[in-house]
Amino acid sequence: MHEFKELTPYRKAFELMLADLGEIQDVEEVSLKDALGRVLAEDIASPIDSPPFNRSAVDGYAVRAEDTFPAREYSPVTLRVMDEIVAGEESKAKVEPGTAVKLMTGAKLPEGANAVVMQEMAGREGNLIRVLRPVAPGQNVAFAGEDVRKGETVLEKGQILRPQDLALLKSLGFKTVRVRRKPRVGIIITGDELIEEFDERALNEGKILESNSVLLWGLVRQYFGEPVFYGVIRDMMEDIREAIEKARAENDLVLVTGGSAFGDRDLAHRAVRLLFHGTTIKPGRPIGYGERVFVMSGYPAAVFAQFHLFVKYALAKLAGARFKPVTVNAELMDKVPSQLGRYEFVKVWYEDGKARPIRKRGSGIISALVRSNGYIAIPENSEGYLKGDRVEVILY
Amino acid sequence: MHEFKELTPYRKAFELMLADLGEIQDVEEVSLKDALGRVLAEDIASPIDSPPFNRSAVDGYAVRAEDTFPAREYSPVTLRVMDEIVAGEESKAKVEPGTAVKLMTGAKLPEGANAVVMQEMAGREGNLIRVLRPVAPGQNVAFAGEDVRKGETVLEKGQILRPQDLALLKSLGFKTVRVRRKPRVGIIITGDELIEEFDERALNEGKILESNSVLLWGLVRQYFGEPVFYGVIRDMMEDIREAIEKARAENDLVLVTGGSAFGDRDLAHRAVRLLFHGTTIKPGRPIGYGERVFVMSGYPAAVFAQFHLFVKYALAKLAGARFKPVTVNAELMDKVPSQLGRYEFVKVWYEDGKARPIRKRGSGIISALVRSNGYIAIPENSEGYLKGDRVEVILY
Repeated sequence: MHEFKELTPYRKAFELMLADLGEIQDVEEVSLKDALGRVLAEDIASPIDSPPFNRSAVDGYAVRAEDTFPAREYSPVTLRVMDEIVAGEESKAKVEPGTAVKLMTGAKLPEGANAVVMQEMAGREGNLIRVLRPVAPGQNVAFAGEDVRKGETVLEKGQILRPQDLALLKSLGFKTVRVRRKPRVGIIITGDELIEEFDERALNEGKILESNSVLLWGLVRQYFGEPVFYGVIRDMMEDIREAIEKARAENDLVLVTGGSAFGDRDLAHRAVRLLFHGTTIKPGRPIGYGERVFVMSGYPAAVFAQFHLFVKYALAKLAGARFKPVTVNAELMDKVPSQLGRYEFVKVWYEDGKARPIRKRGSGIISALVRSNGYIAIPENSEGYLKGDRVEVILY
Repeated sequence: MHEFKELTPYRKAFELMLADLGEIQDVEEVSLKDALGRVLAEDIASPIDSPPFNRSAVDGYAVRAEDTFPAREYSPVTLRVMDEIVAGEESKAKVEPGTAVKLMTGAKLPEGANAVVMQEMAGREGNLIRVLRPVAPGQNVAFAGEDVRKGETVLEKGQILRPQDLALLKSLGFKTVRVRRKPRVGIIITGDELIEEFDERALNEGKILESNSVLLWGLVRQYFGEPVFYGVIRDMMEDIREAIEKARAENDLVLVTGGSAFGDRDLAHRAVRLLFHGTTIKPGRPIGYGERVFVMSGYPAAVFAQFHLFVKYALAKLAGARFKPVTVNAELMDKVPSQLGRYEFVKVWYEDGKARPIRKRGSGIISALVRSNGYIAIPENSEGYLKGDRVEVILY
């Protein structure tokens, strides 16, 4: 067994990986409903002013502001109501001096009017209103283009589309939207020690139930990708090479677990020309990347750290997504020592401004992943944090 | 037009609504891959110890700890290597006094051994190793059941299943998992002023492009539900009543937009016996709830606030989900005044520990939703916050 001659610092490995990957250029035109969670392929300029006309921002009476200038509570101005309209209808009436038109929020301001008196400020008697206070020109009016101007960029390329983004597109008249094709990600699991179904005797002999396939499948789906599973491959050089070649031909990215270290059975890393192999991250040190292939650890907790430190950013780049994980500032509830020279991925449970480190060690420990909802990263030049320190938690 | 006689305080309306809804009891058994994002229907107890045996936590040599007690760097202990095993295989060798077995991380500890010497601490020469430092009994060993004990609850009912939860289930031998049926949510849009396709002339006459359907469709999908769209219904009492009856018969919850206020055309609220109608929230005051039906506003920004303040919690309860939105503590970048007596929903952009209020007013303004990624809630008894205040942001 050999060891890594030199560990590539995390940041350097990250940059090498990111620089090697190109954005997918394929575009799909999908209905707005099918676009939820997809990545916008182009800037969207509004084809219209929104609102398309001056409209009332309140329920009340459209008036000529000048008519109301003398109004006082002890000396109201009386105006004649010429028409009543609701949102979605248009009044043919013109507001002449001494008159008003009743309207609801959102209704188009009738010709002649330049302000709206709120309903509460106008006592109604038959077809007359008594206005108690003056309104200024423009008061209670939403002007054409006030929300969005025609030609204005309302959504930028790379936006991960949320319900409100789709609603904006619909309100501007769009029925479909152009999004990037999802990155296809081939997943290959290697390891003679793995079994895929429960078998007590095999487990007692030292076999391990394989779980990286479903871990990576879920993570890829969570981060913009479309996973494709290529099965569990035994530790035979030719089989592994063949599986990687096939997966690479059919996908934008390939994730191989197992065989990234330097044991006799660690073969996967020999099947790919790697840009780096072995980094300062802990857990997950033996990760390698090259030719659109990540060679990852076999231990789920190491795979999980490798995914969050490398693969999710690879997927964001391939997908062309404007992606930044949610980070929160938190008070650390316990000390976290760290080894100098290691970029440590420390799982925490974040809640109500506090981050509690998850203590379980061992890179095979999945229960610690389950008990966490984020991590703190401790760079190579730090020996860790003390209880009570303010730390940045990256949520997952 | 009438006004609300009395506004129900937000908290009280919320409790009335939540108490009225019952958890869905229907359970579906799905494959692990299909369970991503679903809600676990039962507690999961581990059927096995994990690891199922004592295993090595490092690459190194299984030894009898007692043999190493005299070891010093200037006076190493020499042991004979009897066997070499990899993870997933079992050594038939027994570790007798004076011997060792080479093994890799995860391999089963052979009989006789009670500790592991890390590879770096053992100089190898032929089939001999020179141990430089003593190891204690149990050192570098992961004991059976250390991660998960047989019978231990590893996941609780109501968990929203993440990739790591599915991996844990797979590592314990599960192939399927029992999850709650997703709440089905009928969506009904009402309003004579609405058009569904771009029509410049209609827009100039005061019509509005309908966008609540896709807004609610996306929000329901984001929060555990399965949306069903019942179309845009004109403001005719019988049509609205019929649509609500049909949607209620076919769904667990019904969302109706438009017609929640007291205008002559606001009909939807008359079709349902409401537990409350009109609350202190702003925007979104006219919301009503009763008989598994939310009567919501017509304005998208009001609908959005109503969804986040009420409907997402209704969905979590129906789905039986252990749900708590992500909240972060942030520095407010600008003052936010608030009206006493109103529970204000203030949209913000949260980034790097700072929250910037989104200034656009008007409940029809969708672009403000697009520019936000969370909100702060200002309760009825507060007049708002000052620039620089620490506030809690609820992310969406």
